Amino acid sequence: MEKLVSLCKRRGFIFQSSEIYGGINACWDYGPLGVNLKNNVKRLWWEEMTQRRDDVEGIDAAILMHPTVWKASGHVDSFTDPMVDCKTCKQRFRADEIKKEGQCPSCGNKTLSDIRQFNLMFKTFMGPVEEDAAVVYLRPETCQGIYVNFENVRTTSRQKIPFGIAQIGKSFRNEISPGNFIFRSREFEQMEMQYFVHPSEADKWFEYWKEKRMAWYLEFGIRKEKLRFRDHASDELAHYARRAVDIEYEFPFGWKELEGIHNRGDYDLSRHKEFSGKDLSYFDDATKERFIPYIIETSGGIDRALLAFLSDAYDEEFKDKKLDRVVMHFHPKLAPIKLAVLPLVNRDGMDTKAQELEHSLRKHFPTFYDDGGTIGRRYRRQDEAGTPFGATVDSQTLQDDTVTLRDRDSMEQIRVPMKDLAEAVDKKMEGWERRVPGVKGSRVPGE
Amino acid sequence: MEKLVSLCKRRGFIFQSSEIYGGINACWDYGPLGVNLKNNVKRLWWEEMTQRRDDVEGIDAAILMHPTVWKASGHVDSFTDPMVDCKTCKQRFRADEIKKEGQCPSCGNKTLSDIRQFNLMFKTFMGPVEEDAAVVYLRPETCQGIYVNFENVRTTSRQKIPFGIAQIGKSFRNEISPGNFIFRSREFEQMEMQYFVHPSEADKWFEYWKEKRMAWYLEFGIRKEKLRFRDHASDELAHYARRAVDIEYEFPFGWKELEGIHNRGDYDLSRHKEFSGKDLSYFDDATKERFIPYIIETSGGIDRALLAFLSDAYDEEFKDKKLDRVVMHFHPKLAPIKLAVLPLVNRDGMDTKAQELEHSLRKHFPTFYDDGGTIGRRYRRQDEAGTPFGATVDSQTLQDDTVTLRDRDSMEQIRVPMKDLAEAVDKKMEGWERRVPGVKGSRVPGE
Repeated sequence: MEKLVSLCKRRGFIFQSSEIYGGINACWDYGPLGVNLKNNVKRLWWEEMTQRRDDVEGIDAAILMHPTVWKASGHVDSFTDPMVDCKTCKQRFRADEIKKEGQCPSCGNKTLSDIRQFNLMFKTFMGPVEEDAAVVYLRPETCQGIYVNFENVRTTSRQKIPFGIAQIGKSFRNEISPGNFIFRSREFEQMEMQYFVHPSEADKWFEYWKEKRMAWYLEFGIRKEKLRFRDHASDELAHYARRAVDIEYEFPFGWKELEGIHNRGDYDLSRHKEFSGKDLSYFDDATKERFIPYIIETSGGIDRALLAFLSDAYDEEFKDKKLDRVVMHFHPKLAPIKLAVLPLVNRDGMDTKAQELEHSLRKHFPTFYDDGGTIGRRYRRQDEAGTPFGATVDSQTLQDDTVTLRDRDSMEQIRVPMKDLAEAVDKKMEGWERRVPGVKGSRVPGE
Repeated sequence: MEKLVSLCKRRGFIFQSSEIYGGINACWDYGPLGVNLKNNVKRLWWEEMTQRRDDVEGIDAAILMHPTVWKASGHVDSFTDPMVDCKTCKQRFRADEIKKEGQCPSCGNKTLSDIRQFNLMFKTFMGPVEEDAAVVYLRPETCQGIYVNFENVRTTSRQKIPFGIAQIGKSFRNEISPGNFIFRSREFEQMEMQYFVHPSEADKWFEYWKEKRMAWYLEFGIRKEKLRFRDHASDELAHYARRAVDIEYEFPFGWKELEGIHNRGDYDLSRHKEFSGKDLSYFDDATKERFIPYIIETSGGIDRALLAFLSDAYDEEFKDKKLDRVVMHFHPKLAPIKLAVLPLVNRDGMDTKAQELEHSLRKHFPTFYDDGGTIGRRYRRQDEAGTPFGATVDSQTLQDDTVTLRDRDSMEQIRVPMKDLAEAVDKKMEGWERRVPGVKGSRVPGE
């Protein structure tokens, strides 16, 4: 984990937020490589949900919502963590993190306070004067923005049940104990989809989305053995949930939730119907039945998806027991840069030719030109950035306009005419598969 | 304007936030068409800035930053609007909106208070207990996230001056008088690029970015006569600015700022150097000179860009003095849906064939299948959504696998083999030009 955090900082994936001021706890900034990786995760999820199927619509609701939304959702009353203070060292802890009775995990004194309930929503004041301004909250989850727009989306998109609404956006939770790098932050991003169904079909769609979401992580290269389902026991279920399963990933710090699939029943629309006075029931023209739809939710964290993609891609390869290279085996569709273009050496016009080539490919996909240092060192830099392909302009290029195309994972090189390079890269991108241990160029686990 | 707002709501571009609870002032939700339009604006800006050039890097910094950032930037002390209250009707106004001396614009009484300075930053509390938690602010602009990451980005990306850093993200301002639909909201999204230059080159780059940004709006279809530059007079300049020019658009409510280009001098890096104690100067290896870079900023609002694209696209076409159709003339690259696939009638397998065709094209671009109502009515619906192309499966299709391809703007139809449809649409998308008044299918102004 330390190695990964260090690589993320060194290569510009992730920085501590406001680092020059000593940082701000549990907020993170994405650097040049990180923001492109994150944008790719978001775009692939969005395309899968809204473009490749006709039964899911997208929305983008505001972070600041009417405060009654959070009364209806139950967050004002019960979105709390139990907290204790140590009267000696003044530190604060989540009550469930206290292992030994009454004893402070930090200073060891038996001077812990009683348990208090602490609401995790950030609040702020809207309107010009604080004293009489409306208290509003930074949303702690994006899904409520979907529920309150259910009728607007249904009527304008002319969708019939079953159908879904997808959203990507920031949420905020004033966590008592954030941590594990970007796994649990106070500011984070979610990708949530709410699928509205007839109550009798809820179980069927729960199974459907559970499989569908697992398949998505596998499709983009996460190793199968690092993913599992974990069913919530009935005493673990949130107040709104009838059934819940987590997709878990084995992070360097253990198996943790990557995404939750929930059968929320009719809780959400019923509550918003009650608190808003608006009829949020659905009338089925075919069966002449009126009902409150059940909701099957797929709720994923983008930052933790990113951390899973980063952890899973990280690899150290050894030659003769010595570290040969650090390589990020991203799926090419996730990789921040698709193709590096390099002159073998900076002479005889190889650099100019490589620059021209790189320039001409920019409209196809993100590219990178590098002529600093030896070719081996430049390949290693791209391996660390997870760039799946490298094209090198050498002396033969000057003769016949072909370049070598290098594969990050296998390190194999083939010769490709410059004019066919974009197509060759596209084809390799579509056909990419995660290599398994034992194959050349694969992860060497545990060495 | 009313017509546009109504179309936005009716067709699912933009809804009032938390509408079922009576709305929340000056926050807006983007519906299914709106979110795709907005994503397209963001993606095209991002590609132009970070992918098509090698001297601009992207980042995504957190909304919650260290509070000292806002001391250094000057926001804690001076990001204020002068405000007055009316002692009779209790309404509040921006002092600069009061036209008649001492007289309330709402109730007409001469009972206005003295002017008070009101800070526009939203504040919240980070940490478990409000009393001793850190006061943090929702960022009122995204650019500070760029300045504090200047060193991190420069060193990890190995960029040399001149180079830029681009960012897209939400900002928040507790405006006293928000309004004009999505033009001025309390929660809004920005696309900002900060270009770091040698002080002696600041004027040159100011001119460069001024022209570049104007060209961007023109490229994506805004009519030339609706755009203009407006130079800030020296007494109008913000405290950090040496020079400033607005790109203005003629909205239905007048000429207003769409984007600002600013020469910020060395103000930002000097202030953050002073407040953080970190050396943010730059050493030029070639000239052996050390200096604080000047910053040329391009600061655009995404919501107001959207409003400009929406306003500019809106058109009513008349036939024999009667309204024939409402059409959104979006640039095809901005349009939420690229291609509608329609069966001429729902029989003889035309519907199945059209569905198969639509399904096969989803991986290329956002498509839409519609078989509800007459073909004329379905075309009109797509015109309103701004869908640039429509493919219709008719009886001839069943014979020879060709479809009609209809152009939204000219309403001309050509026959295209089904297998060439994706390519034909891509080609039309690349070659699209905004039609001028007087040409068939163009806007009929003022009718």
